[in-house]
Amino acid sequence: MIRSIEESPLYFIVNPRSIAFFGASNNFLRMGSMMLSSVQALGYEGRIYPIHQKEKEVRGHKAYASILDLPEVPDLAIIVLPTEVVCQTLEDCGKKGIRHAIVVSGGFREAGPEGVILQKKLEAVAHQYGIRFLGPNCLGVANPHLKLNPTTITAEGPPGFVGLASQSGSFITQMFDYLHRHGMGFSAAMSVGNEANIDIVDCLEYLGACPHTKVITLYIEGITRGRRFIETAKAITPHKPIVALYVGGSDAGRQAGLSHTGSLSGPNEIYDGMFRQCGILRAQTLSEMFDYALALGTLPRPGGNRVIIQTHSGGPGATAADACGRAGLVLATLSSETREKLQPMIPKTASTANPVDMTFSRNFGEQFFDIPDILLHEKNADMFLAYFLSPGIFIERILREMGVPEASLPEERDKMITAQADGFLRLTELHPDKLIVGFTYRSLQEGMVRYLLDRGLPIYQDPERAVRAMAAVLHYYQMRDSIVKSDV
Amino acid sequence: MIRSIEESPLYFIVNPRSIAFFGASNNFLRMGSMMLSSVQALGYEGRIYPIHQKEKEVRGHKAYASILDLPEVPDLAIIVLPTEVVCQTLEDCGKKGIRHAIVVSGGFREAGPEGVILQKKLEAVAHQYGIRFLGPNCLGVANPHLKLNPTTITAEGPPGFVGLASQSGSFITQMFDYLHRHGMGFSAAMSVGNEANIDIVDCLEYLGACPHTKVITLYIEGITRGRRFIETAKAITPHKPIVALYVGGSDAGRQAGLSHTGSLSGPNEIYDGMFRQCGILRAQTLSEMFDYALALGTLPRPGGNRVIIQTHSGGPGATAADACGRAGLVLATLSSETREKLQPMIPKTASTANPVDMTFSRNFGEQFFDIPDILLHEKNADMFLAYFLSPGIFIERILREMGVPEASLPEERDKMITAQADGFLRLTELHPDKLIVGFTYRSLQEGMVRYLLDRGLPIYQDPERAVRAMAAVLHYYQMRDSIVKSDV
Repeated sequence: MIRSIEESPLYFIVNPRSIAFFGASNNFLRMGSMMLSSVQALGYEGRIYPIHQKEKEVRGHKAYASILDLPEVPDLAIIVLPTEVVCQTLEDCGKKGIRHAIVVSGGFREAGPEGVILQKKLEAVAHQYGIRFLGPNCLGVANPHLKLNPTTITAEGPPGFVGLASQSGSFITQMFDYLHRHGMGFSAAMSVGNEANIDIVDCLEYLGACPHTKVITLYIEGITRGRRFIETAKAITPHKPIVALYVGGSDAGRQAGLSHTGSLSGPNEIYDGMFRQCGILRAQTLSEMFDYALALGTLPRPGGNRVIIQTHSGGPGATAADACGRAGLVLATLSSETREKLQPMIPKTASTANPVDMTFSRNFGEQFFDIPDILLHEKNADMFLAYFLSPGIFIERILREMGVPEASLPEERDKMITAQADGFLRLTELHPDKLIVGFTYRSLQEGMVRYLLDRGLPIYQDPERAVRAMAAVLHYYQMRDSIVKSDV
Repeated sequence: MIRSIEESPLYFIVNPRSIAFFGASNNFLRMGSMMLSSVQALGYEGRIYPIHQKEKEVRGHKAYASILDLPEVPDLAIIVLPTEVVCQTLEDCGKKGIRHAIVVSGGFREAGPEGVILQKKLEAVAHQYGIRFLGPNCLGVANPHLKLNPTTITAEGPPGFVGLASQSGSFITQMFDYLHRHGMGFSAAMSVGNEANIDIVDCLEYLGACPHTKVITLYIEGITRGRRFIETAKAITPHKPIVALYVGGSDAGRQAGLSHTGSLSGPNEIYDGMFRQCGILRAQTLSEMFDYALALGTLPRPGGNRVIIQTHSGGPGATAADACGRAGLVLATLSSETREKLQPMIPKTASTANPVDMTFSRNFGEQFFDIPDILLHEKNADMFLAYFLSPGIFIERILREMGVPEASLPEERDKMITAQADGFLRLTELHPDKLIVGFTYRSLQEGMVRYLLDRGLPIYQDPERAVRAMAAVLHYYQMRDSIVKSDV
C-alpha cells in the first residue's frame, strides 16, 4: 500500500503541472478539441502543449508539430488520436521522457482480436519506456480541486469529497451535474477504460490516500486483480468508506459489460462475498451509490439504529416510517421528558408520538430549530429525519398577501429562508453525535433545501432514499468494526 | 358498481358548481384562508360563498353570516373550523339542504376517545340529513380539470391522467409540483381522512368511472371495507390499472399510521395477497407508485419482455442492462438484418450488440430518429429504452464555438432541440405497439427531456426506475389477463 498519493502511478495523471495534448485542434467537433475546451473552461492553471502537425496555434495555445519540439518534458500526455497512430505516439512520448499518459482512443481489446494485438503492442511500448498510463478506451480523469477536467463535458459545481474510480468513462464526465444537484462534488474521478497498464486497484489505492476524498465510489464491470483488490480495500475501509456498484452480476449486465470494455465478470454472489469481506458497501444502482456517498461523507458515526421522524404531514411521516422498517431501522420511543417539552409547541390535534407530526405549523422558528432541538436531545434516539416541504412557497404567499411588492419578494423570501436554514444548520453543531438528514418531494434546487445541501446537510428526494442512506452509514461502521476486530 | 361518475357520492364533491366555504377569512394565516386562496389561484369558475360571522367580504367574495342566508343551496360545503363547532355547522348545512361536504377539521377519531364520540355525532348528523362527506381530518379534493384546488398549496402544472385516492392529505396537496416535474398531473385527487362517511372504496369507484383518469393510484394505511374494496378493484383493473402504496405493513409504518388517522392496518402478506387477487400493482414507495403511473398512462400493452437499449455511453447502457436483469426483462437479440442496417451509422469502435452503443456520435438526426427507428423495427424486441444525455449542453457549446452570439444562443439551441425531439416523438406514432421509454441522469427539466415529457413520452431519472416501470406495465397486463381468464 502507498502511504501518500505522491507514490501512486496516478499522481502525475491526476495532478499534472503540464500536459501535452494530442488530438485537439481548432475544429471543435473533434473529441480532443472538446476535451481541451473543457480543460480551458474550468480554468486549469498548468501548462498546456497541443501537438498538431499543421496548426500553429490550437484554441489559443501555441501548438507544436512534434512532441520532441516541446520546451520541457510535460508531466502528462493525453492522447485522443485514431487507433492506428496511438502506439507510435506513445513511443514518441517515451522518447521525449514523458512517463505518464491517458490514452482516450478506443479500438483496442474491446474491438476484437486485432484490437487485442494492438493493445499488447501498446503495453510493450509503455513497458519499454517506463510509462504508466490510463486506458486505452477511457475518458481519463477529473480533478476539480486542481481545476482540471480533460473530459468531453464541462464541469459544473464546486469540488467535493467523492472519489470515483470507474470502468465507464461516462460516469466521470456525465456526473458533474448530477453530483452537484444532489449536494456533492468529485474530489477526483478516474475512468480506467481497458486497464492495460493502470487498473481500478491503482485508482482505489490513490483515492484511499487522497486527502480530498472522504468516500470512495467504484463502478465495476469486472475485476481482474482480485486478491490485490481485496488487500487494498481491506486496508482502506477501516478509515475511509467504499461504495461499489457492480453491474456484471446479472446475465444482461454481463452481456453489456463484455461489449463495453471486454471485461470478464463473475456471478453476483462472488462479488457480494468479496465486498462483504473487505467492508465495501454494495449499491444496486448509480443513484444509490451516490446516495450512500452523500450520507457517508457528511454524517457522523451513528450510536445505533433508533430514528426520530419529524414531519408536518402524516403521509410523508408514515412513508418514512415504513422505509425505516424495510431498512432495519426502528422508530425511537420518545421519553416522557421529551414529550412534555414538545407539548406546548404541538397543536392538540397533532402527535407527540414518533413520527412527530406538527401538522399545520406556521411557526418556522419552532419547526426548524426548537422542535428538532428537543428531539435531538432525546437520549433514546440516534438519528433524526426531517420532512422538508418548501417553506419558500408558504413564505412567498404570505409575503404577497401582506402586500410586499413582487419585485422585492424574492429577496425578502430568501432572507427569511436563510434565517431558518441557519438555525437548522446550528443543530449539526449542537448535536455532533446525531445523524441529521432530510427528505423532500420537491426539487432539491429550491431555496432552503439547496441552501442546506450546499452546506453539507444531506437531503434526499424520497424518504426511502434517505433512510437507506442512513442505514448504509450504520452498516458501514458495523462492517468496519468487524474487520478491525477480525484483524486483531 | 357505478356506471358513471354522476352516480358517485363524490360527484358533487369533486365537481361542485358552487361551494360554501367555512373557515376562510381575511387573515391569510388561517388554514381556511389559504385553501380559498388556492381555489382562487387556479381560477375555479363556480360560485363561492364564504360564511363568516363578522366579515362582509372575504378575499373579494361577498360573505354571509350564516349558511341559511345564502341565495342558493350550494353543491358543496367545505368546513375548516375548530373541532367544537363542526357538528353544528354540518347540521346547519343539512337544514339549508346541502347534501355534500368536505370536513377538513381534525380532532376526531385520530385524537383519542373523546374524538371518537365526536365523530359518531358527526356521522349521525350526516345520516339525519342525508349528507355525504369526505373527512373529517382530511384535505379534501383537487380537480384540476375543473380548475378546482381547495387545498393548502397552490396547484402547479396542467391537469393530467393520474387519479389519486389517499389516506394522507399531504399527498393530495403536496404532489402537484412532483407530478408536474415528472411528466404527470392529477385527473382528480381525494384525501379521505378518517373516512367517517365516504371511504377510499368510494373514491376508487369514482376514479374507475372518471373519464380523465387513465391510472388510479392509492395511498393506503389500512382498509376497512375489505370485501367491497376487492370487488370494486376487480371490476376496475380489467380496463384501468391501479397502483397501490401500502405503508401499514411494517411495524414502523403501522405505528405511524395509527397516530395519523387512527386506521388499523394488517400484515404485509394479507395486503399483498389482496392486491394480487385484484390485479393491483403494489409499489413500495411514493416515487415508485408515480413511476408506474407514468408508464401505465403513456405506454401501450407490451408484446413481451424483450428490451433494446440505445446509448452513447457504455456505463449507462450496462447499468440499464443490469436493471433489466433484476426486473425480469431480457435484452433482445438483434437480428442480422437490424445489425446490417445499423452498421453504417455506428462507429467502428462502437457496438451493434444490445445495448446498442453509438459512442461519441455527433449526428443528432441518426441518434434521435434513424437509429431508434431501425431498432424499433426489430421483430425480436418489445420495448425500447434510450439513454438521454442532454443534447442541449453539446449544442450550446458547438453554437458558441461557431460564434453564435450569447443573446441568440438559447433560441438557436431550442430550435435544434425541438427539431430532434419532434423526430423522436414521431417514433411513437410509427411504432405504436412498442414501449418507448427514456432515462437520464440530468435534470428532467432540461430542454429536450422536458419537451418530450410534456408530450407524454416517459423519461426517468435513473435506468432502474425506467426499467421497473416498464416491467410494471408488463406485469399489469399479465395480471389483467389472469383475472379476466379466471372470471370466464
